[in-house]
Amino acid sequence: MSDYRVGILGATGAVGQKFIRLLEGHPWFNITSLGASSRSAGKTYREAANWIEATAMPESVSGLTVKECEPGQFPDVDFVFSGLDSSVAGKVERAFAEAGIPVISNAKNFRTDPTVPLLIPEVNPDHIDLIKSQSFTEDGSGWIITNPNCVAVPLTTSLKPLFDEYGVESVILTSMQAISGAGYPGVPSLDILGNVVPLISDEEPKIHAEPLKLLGNLEDGKLTHADFPVQATATRVPVINGHMLAVTVGLKKKPGSAEEVKELYRNWKSPIADLDLPSAPEYPIFYHDDERYPQPRMHADAEKGMRTSVGRMRSSNVLDLSYVAMAHNTVRGAAGGAILNAELLVRKKYL
Amino acid sequence: MSDYRVGILGATGAVGQKFIRLLEGHPWFNITSLGASSRSAGKTYREAANWIEATAMPESVSGLTVKECEPGQFPDVDFVFSGLDSSVAGKVERAFAEAGIPVISNAKNFRTDPTVPLLIPEVNPDHIDLIKSQSFTEDGSGWIITNPNCVAVPLTTSLKPLFDEYGVESVILTSMQAISGAGYPGVPSLDILGNVVPLISDEEPKIHAEPLKLLGNLEDGKLTHADFPVQATATRVPVINGHMLAVTVGLKKKPGSAEEVKELYRNWKSPIADLDLPSAPEYPIFYHDDERYPQPRMHADAEKGMRTSVGRMRSSNVLDLSYVAMAHNTVRGAAGGAILNAELLVRKKYL
Amino acid sequence: MSDYRVGILGATGAVGQKFIRLLEGHPWFNITSLGASSRSAGKTYREAANWIEATAMPESVSGLTVKECEPGQFPDVDFVFSGLDSSVAGKVERAFAEAGIPVISNAKNFRTDPTVPLLIPEVNPDHIDLIKSQSFTEDGSGWIITNPNCVAVPLTTSLKPLFDEYGVESVILTSMQAISGAGYPGVPSLDILGNVVPLISDEEPKIHAEPLKLLGNLEDGKLTHADFPVQATATRVPVINGHMLAVTVGLKKKPGSAEEVKELYRNWKSPIADLDLPSAPEYPIFYHDDERYPQPRMHADAEKGMRTSVGRMRSSNVLDLSYVAMAHNTVRGAAGGAILNAELLVRKKYL
Amino acid sequence: MSDYRVGILGATGAVGQKFIRLLEGHPWFNITSLGASSRSAGKTYREAANWIEATAMPESVSGLTVKECEPGQFPDVDFVFSGLDSSVAGKVERAFAEAGIPVISNAKNFRTDPTVPLLIPEVNPDHIDLIKSQSFTEDGSGWIITNPNCVAVPLTTSLKPLFDEYGVESVILTSMQAISGAGYPGVPSLDILGNVVPLISDEEPKIHAEPLKLLGNLEDGKLTHADFPVQATATRVPVINGHMLAVTVGLKKKPGSAEEVKELYRNWKSPIADLDLPSAPEYPIFYHDDERYPQPRMHADAEKGMRTSVGRMRSSNVLDLSYVAMAHNTVRGAAGGAILNAELLVRKKYL
Repeated sequence: MSDYRVGILGATGAVGQKFIRLLEGHPWFNITSLGASSRSAGKTYREAANWIEATAMPESVSGLTVKECEPGQFPDVDFVFSGLDSSVAGKVERAFAEAGIPVISNAKNFRTDPTVPLLIPEVNPDHIDLIKSQSFTEDGSGWIITNPNCVAVPLTTSLKPLFDEYGVESVILTSMQAISGAGYPGVPSLDILGNVVPLISDEEPKIHAEPLKLLGNLEDGKLTHADFPVQATATRVPVINGHMLAVTVGLKKKPGSAEEVKELYRNWKSPIADLDLPSAPEYPIFYHDDERYPQPRMHADAEKGMRTSVGRMRSSNVLDLSYVAMAHNTVRGAAGGAILNAELLVRKKYL
Repeated sequence: MSDYRVGILGATGAVGQKFIRLLEGHPWFNITSLGASSRSAGKTYREAANWIEATAMPESVSGLTVKECEPGQFPDVDFVFSGLDSSVAGKVERAFAEAGIPVISNAKNFRTDPTVPLLIPEVNPDHIDLIKSQSFTEDGSGWIITNPNCVAVPLTTSLKPLFDEYGVESVILTSMQAISGAGYPGVPSLDILGNVVPLISDEEPKIHAEPLKLLGNLEDGKLTHADFPVQATATRVPVINGHMLAVTVGLKKKPGSAEEVKELYRNWKSPIADLDLPSAPEYPIFYHDDERYPQPRMHADAEKGMRTSVGRMRSSNVLDLSYVAMAHNTVRGAAGGAILNAELLVRKKYL
Repeated sequence: MSDYRVGILGATGAVGQKFIRLLEGHPWFNITSLGASSRSAGKTYREAANWIEATAMPESVSGLTVKECEPGQFPDVDFVFSGLDSSVAGKVERAFAEAGIPVISNAKNFRTDPTVPLLIPEVNPDHIDLIKSQSFTEDGSGWIITNPNCVAVPLTTSLKPLFDEYGVESVILTSMQAISGAGYPGVPSLDILGNVVPLISDEEPKIHAEPLKLLGNLEDGKLTHADFPVQATATRVPVINGHMLAVTVGLKKKPGSAEEVKELYRNWKSPIADLDLPSAPEYPIFYHDDERYPQPRMHADAEKGMRTSVGRMRSSNVLDLSYVAMAHNTVRGAAGGAILNAELLVRKKYL
Repeated sequence: MSDYRVGILGATGAVGQKFIRLLEGHPWFNITSLGASSRSAGKTYREAANWIEATAMPESVSGLTVKECEPGQFPDVDFVFSGLDSSVAGKVERAFAEAGIPVISNAKNFRTDPTVPLLIPEVNPDHIDLIKSQSFTEDGSGWIITNPNCVAVPLTTSLKPLFDEYGVESVILTSMQAISGAGYPGVPSLDILGNVVPLISDEEPKIHAEPLKLLGNLEDGKLTHADFPVQATATRVPVINGHMLAVTVGLKKKPGSAEEVKELYRNWKSPIADLDLPSAPEYPIFYHDDERYPQPRMHADAEKGMRTSVGRMRSSNVLDLSYVAMAHNTVRGAAGGAILNAELLVRKKYL
C-alpha cells in the first residue's frame, strides 16, 4: 500500500504546508506533485513557499517544481489533497474530478453538494458510498470528498455518542477559536493580543449546517440530514492551536445522570477502530476527568493532534447536558482529517 | 455632599487598591481610614501595599497608617467599602454593621442574605429599601449592601430590558473571563498564556443565582426572586480586563425581530439617569452596531469602565435571542459598582 | 492661539488615526482637512477609515470629506501633520512644502536631510532654526520638520543627560518593540503570540544614525552630528504599546557611581520646561527606583504616553553603565512627538 | 547499558516533572525512586504531583511511592538527578554524595564549588575529571556534577566556537526569558501578559560568572576560569519556552567577516559528536540563515529541545560581533542538559 503518488493543491498556503508536514514519513502516501498559483508555478517549492511550520521543510518536497493547479500538470498522481482557498477551490477541484483524479478536499465548496460526502471517519464512514452517485466522470474514476469545518469536527464528534444513544434535539455552543484557523497572515496581532473577538465571518452558518449532514442517514444512495437546530457564537481568542467549544445540548431521551454520559464517552468505540489506519488516534474521543481540562495549549497536540478531547460533562439547568470539547483545528479539523479520510478510502478500496 | 469620611477594608488587596484608585478625586468620598490584616497593621500604606495599579499610588493614602479591620479602629468613618476576601468578609462585615457602620461590600458572603440588597443601581435601585429589614443594630444605623459577581453584572444588566419587555424564560451563556478577576498573584502565567481554561471554581453557581435576586420583585418589604434557569460555562482567557459573555436567552413574549430588540437597547433609559451620580455612565448599556464589537481590550475602559457593552443581537435557532455582552470586571463588576451603590445610597438619604 | 487650522496627511492610517485621537480637544489645533489616498478621497472620514483606536472616532472629523494629498486641496490650513507611509511621504511632503504649507512629519523620508530638523523638543529644541536653511519656497513659508524613529526617541532622550554630563563614547542596545509599531494590519498574530522575533527590517540603521543627528551641534546654521557608534538589535515582542530598551553605554568621563547618575536623571530639567506646551509631560524623563520598572503595560500610558521611563541604572562590567528605558511608541515615538514639535514651533513663532 | 536505576530528587516540582517526562523511554535510565518534600512522602506520585506537563504522566512512575529526600531511602539507585529548589538542594545533595550516591544536579548550589564540574558536554567535556578532586566520600563513590543556568547554556555554547577561534574579550547581552523558567506557579499572569519585565532577581550574576567557569582550562586537576567581563540585562517576556539572547561580543583576534564566522558555526564539530549519546542533538549549534530566526515558539523544540539556535551574525559597530541565540530553557537549559551530562558520564565510565 505504500506507493500512492499524491499531489497537493494549494501547496504553498497554510493548509498545504500542514498537508506536507503531516505526510512526511507517511507509510502509504508519497507527495510527488505540488500545485499552487501561477505566481509560484515554475519555482522550486523552497523558493515558492514562505514556510511557516515549526519543523523544517521536508527535503522530499523542497526541490519539487511547483505546477499550476491544472489536471494536465498532474498526469502521474493517484489522487490529490486540496488545501485550496475557497475562492478558487470550486473550479479547480471540479476540473480535477472531471479529469478522473480523485480529490480529497479541505475546502468548503463542495461540502453542501448532496452527492459529495462530508466525512469524519469515526462519525459517518458509511457516507463514502455517496461517491458512487457522483457524475464528474462517466467511469467514476474522478470524484470529490470533503472534510468538515474545524468547529464542526469536535462538535459533531462529541455529539455522536449522544446522538446515537439519546437523540439530539437542540445544540447551543460558544466556540473559542485559535488564530491558526484564519491562516497566514490571518488575524492581525493588534486585533487579538489580550483580546476576544466575538465574530468570525461566515463561520456560524457552517457550524449550524454541517453536523446535520454528518449525522445524516444514508439509505439507498440518498442522504437524509439530521434535523435539529444548532446555535453558535464563534469567537476568536489568543490561542495558537485548538478550538475550544462550550456546548449545551437538549436530548430526546434523558440520561440517568452525567456520570452515565461520562461512561458512554469512556466506553465509546470508534466504528473504524479495527481498520488500523495510520493516522487514526487510539482515542478519537478522550474524556478528561480533571475538570480543568481539556485546554488547547495542553491537549491540542495529544495523539498527534487527531483527538477530540471532552470534559466537564454535567447536567444543565437549561436543556439537558453541558460540556466542553476541543480539537486541533488545523490537524484534526483540517489537513489531518483529510488524510484520515484518504486512509479510510484506501481501506475501502476507493483508492 | 463632599464630606463623607470613608474607610476601606482589605485595602492592600487587589480590590482594595482598585477602590483607592477609583476614589482618587471623588467629589463626595474621602478615604480617611484603611484596614487590612494584622500583618499590615501599623505600617504606612506605602509600606504595607504591593501596589499593582498602573497609575501611581495616590499621595492622599500613601502615608495613612493601616489598621486592623475592627470597628473600634474606625471611629470616624461614615461608612466603609469592603474589598475583603470572602474567607474573612463574613465575620468582619457583620462586626462593622453591628457597630453601626454601614458596609458597602464587594464580597460574596452576604449576597444571598434575604435582608441584604444585591444591587446594580441601573437594574434594581428600589431594592435598597431592603436595608430597613436588617437587624444588625437596633437603631438601623449599621447595615450591609452588596454588589454582584463580576459576570452577573453584565449578564443581568443586559437581560434587564429583555426581562421587562418580554419576560425571560431561560438563559445559557459562556463567559470568557479576564485574568484580573482572579486577583493577584491569581492565575499563573503558565496556565493561561496562549490558552483557555474551561473551569473557574465556584463561579458558575453565582452566575446561576444572582440574576434571579437582582431581577426579583420587592413588595411589602419582601423580595421574591425571579424564576428562570441559568446555565453558565465559566472560562478563563488571556485578557487583562473585561469579561465577555456569549448569551442565548429564551423569552416569554416573542420579539418581532432582532432589530426591534436592538432598538429596545438603544432607547433604554436607566432608572437612575436623572440622579446625576458621579460614577454613573451616560450609557449603562451601550449597543454596538459593528458586529466585531464589543471587545474587551477595546471597550472595557469605555466610560471609565462603568459601561456594559452589548452587540451581535440576533434571532437564535434555539431559544429566542443570542447576543454578546462585556463589562470591565474589576470596575463595573467590583469596586466601581460598589462606589456607584454608595452614590445611590447618598442620593436616597441612606448615607 | 486656539485657531490653528490643521490638516492630516495619511489620515486613515494607524498614525493618522493617532493624530486625530490625540488632537481631540487640543487647545490650539483644530483639524479642518483630512488627506488620504485616492481610494478614500471623496468619502466621509467615517466611511473611509477602518477606525482602530479604542476610543470612539471624534465627531469633529467623522463627517469631514477626505481629500487627496495634494496641496491645492488644502487651501485653508496653517500647517499639516504627515502620517504618510514612507513610500509616498517624500513626494507628497515636498509638494506641500513647496506650496508654502509647513509639514510636521512623522515619516522617515526627510529625517536625514541636512536642512530638515529631526526634533525632540526636550533634547534639541535649538535645531528648529535649521528651518531657515530650507529652500522649499523662496519666502520660507513652506518647510518640513520631522520626529525620530520610535526607538530613537527613548534612546536619545535617556542618553541626553549622560551626553551632556559625561560625553558618550559608544552605545549597545536591544530593543523589545511593541506590535503597534508595525501599524495595522501589521504583525500577523501567528508570528508574535508567545514569541519573540529577532528582526525588524530596516529598523536598526535608523537607531544607529538618528541619535547622532539629534545630539548634534548647530552652529552658524550648520549641524555637526555627534560621533559615537551605536549597535542595536531590534526585536519584536507580544506587547501592545511601549518599546523597551536595554542599553549599555560607554562614557568619556566616568561617573562616580550609579547613584550619582540616578540623581542626574532625577534632577534633570527639560530645556522646554518653562514653555508650558500643552502636550509636554511634567517628567520627560522619569526615573523608576523600583527595579522591576519600567514595564510597557504599566507605564507606557503615563502622562498621556509622553514620558520616557528609565530604570535599573547600574555600573556595567563592559563599557560603563547599563539601564533600561521605555516610551510609548505611537504617542511619544510618533504622533504625540510630532504634536509636541508643532507646539514648540508655535511658541518659537515658526507657526 | 540499559539498566541504570535512577532516582529523582524534587520529583513533584516543575524540573522534576521535566526529568520524568524526558526520561520516559530512555534507553539507559530507568526511574526507580522518587523523592520530594515530607508533605508528599508516602503518597503515590499520582497523588502527590500536580502534573503540569502537556503529555500524560508516564505510567511507570504514577504508582511509585514518593519518598523523603534522604539517602537512606534510596538504597538501590545508581545515581540521582536533582531538580531540588536551591533552598534545600545544598544540604540534600551533599548528604547523597556523602552517602556514596552520585548526584547529577540542576540546582545552583554547587555550581561555584571549585571541585564540582559545571558541565555542558559540547563545551567542556574534559571538566568531568574534576570529579576526582571531590572528597564527599573517601572512595570517590559519591560526587556531584552540575549543569549551568538556563541562559548560561545558550550563551556559552554560542561563544564556544568564537572563544576557541578568536578569543573573547567582553560580552554584552540582553536575555528575553520564557515564563517556564520561573517554575510553577511562577510568574503571575497579570505581571507578564502583554508586558516585558526588565528584572529577574538573582539571574544576572549567574550569567556573568558561569561562562567563565565553563570556558575555563583544566590542567593538572586545577581549573582556571576564563577571564572576560560579561554584562547581562535579564528580562522576562510572554513566551512559554525558549530563552532568546541578543549578544554583542568583543574578540581578541578579529574575524575577516561575518560570513567567516557563520562558516565557523556551520562547520563547528561538537567534541562529543562521536560518542553517540542518546540525548545529544545532531546540531548542538544550528546556524539559521533566515534573519527572522531563531524564534522561541518556532525553534525551542527543535531536536527535542536540545539544540542551541544561532542567527543574525553580523559585524558590530561597538565591539566586534552581534548575534542572537536561543535554546529551550527547561530542556537544554535544565533537565535535558542534566540527562546529557549523565550520558557523558556513562560513556566516560564515571557511572
